[in-house]
Amino acid sequence: MAYHLLQHDRDGAALLGRALTQAVEQIRHCALCNTFTENEVCETCLDPERDPTLLCVVETPTDQLMIEQTLTFKGLYFVLMGRLSPLDGIGPKDIQLEKLVSRATDGVVTEVVLATNFTNEGEATAHYISETMKARGLQVSRLARGVPVGGELEYVDAGTIARAMLDRRAT
Amino acid sequence: MAYHLLQHDRDGAALLGRALTQAVEQIRHCALCNTFTENEVCETCLDPERDPTLLCVVETPTDQLMIEQTLTFKGLYFVLMGRLSPLDGIGPKDIQLEKLVSRATDGVVTEVVLATNFTNEGEATAHYISETMKARGLQVSRLARGVPVGGELEYVDAGTIARAMLDRRAT
Repeated sequence: MAYHLLQHDRDGAALLGRALTQAVEQIRHCALCNTFTENEVCETCLDPERDPTLLCVVETPTDQLMIEQTLTFKGLYFVLMGRLSPLDGIGPKDIQLEKLVSRATDGVVTEVVLATNFTNEGEATAHYISETMKARGLQVSRLARGVPVGGELEYVDAGTIARAMLDRRAT
Repeated sequence: MAYHLLQHDRDGAALLGRALTQAVEQIRHCALCNTFTENEVCETCLDPERDPTLLCVVETPTDQLMIEQTLTFKGLYFVLMGRLSPLDGIGPKDIQLEKLVSRATDGVVTEVVLATNFTNEGEATAHYISETMKARGLQVSRLARGVPVGGELEYVDAGTIARAMLDRRAT
């Protein structure tokens, strides 16, 4: 990319350089939800239309965007910017757990919705946060595990079917 | 396949022919669960270790096998051998609904677990059977829908995330 820009688009290279420098200088973490923002507090956290009693915990800003696109969640978010991963030396301090605890215990939040990934690390992170939050008297929920929409049992893995059977719901 | 057998393996062809003829003559539907069997009632239905109060409804014998492999279900089955599909002219009679109703209302079954696929047709079939069973006072449940085991939100479709959010569970 560097060669291409220097050879064919030196103006573009200069523009990209300035944009990157500007981003590094101006983009920081939201004081409330920890996501990327240019302001002290991000737009989502400032939105008065949102339900402040619900706090959804996600691993990344991309995950937040995925949930936003479904239009099913009208509460606020907390972005961990990572997940617990002891093998990589990532512990509770690296995922801003203290910031999350003080955010969730603001007296307004009543339910913490855990939307970390369903990988081993995401599940461990959800479990850890769940225990921390329940110790503080908060209600904790987790996104449902099961068969995806459009899924056929024949092509779904046994672990998912097992979970879907154990978590079956009354209709 | 026919050319290959006639040219290279005429004994195999004769064997295959006899096996097919025998299967057509001897394989029939289990009087209780409707799956393929050589007997009046299949081995699963005759197993005294199984919980006769739970009846799991699946579309095909393959789906039954998938659920068996998870070791999470110890009840009995009913195999529809299909699904409702009005566009293909497949109605309630074609999926043995009357046989299912008389099976489920034997006085022993208390919960019907719907494990049809999560396709449009499978969902419609589940809804239809659910209404039919509830009208007869039976408890009806459906396999959980949600994010599959190992799933990352970034790569899961919006419909599945929406369902996982709406069906979130207290931890």
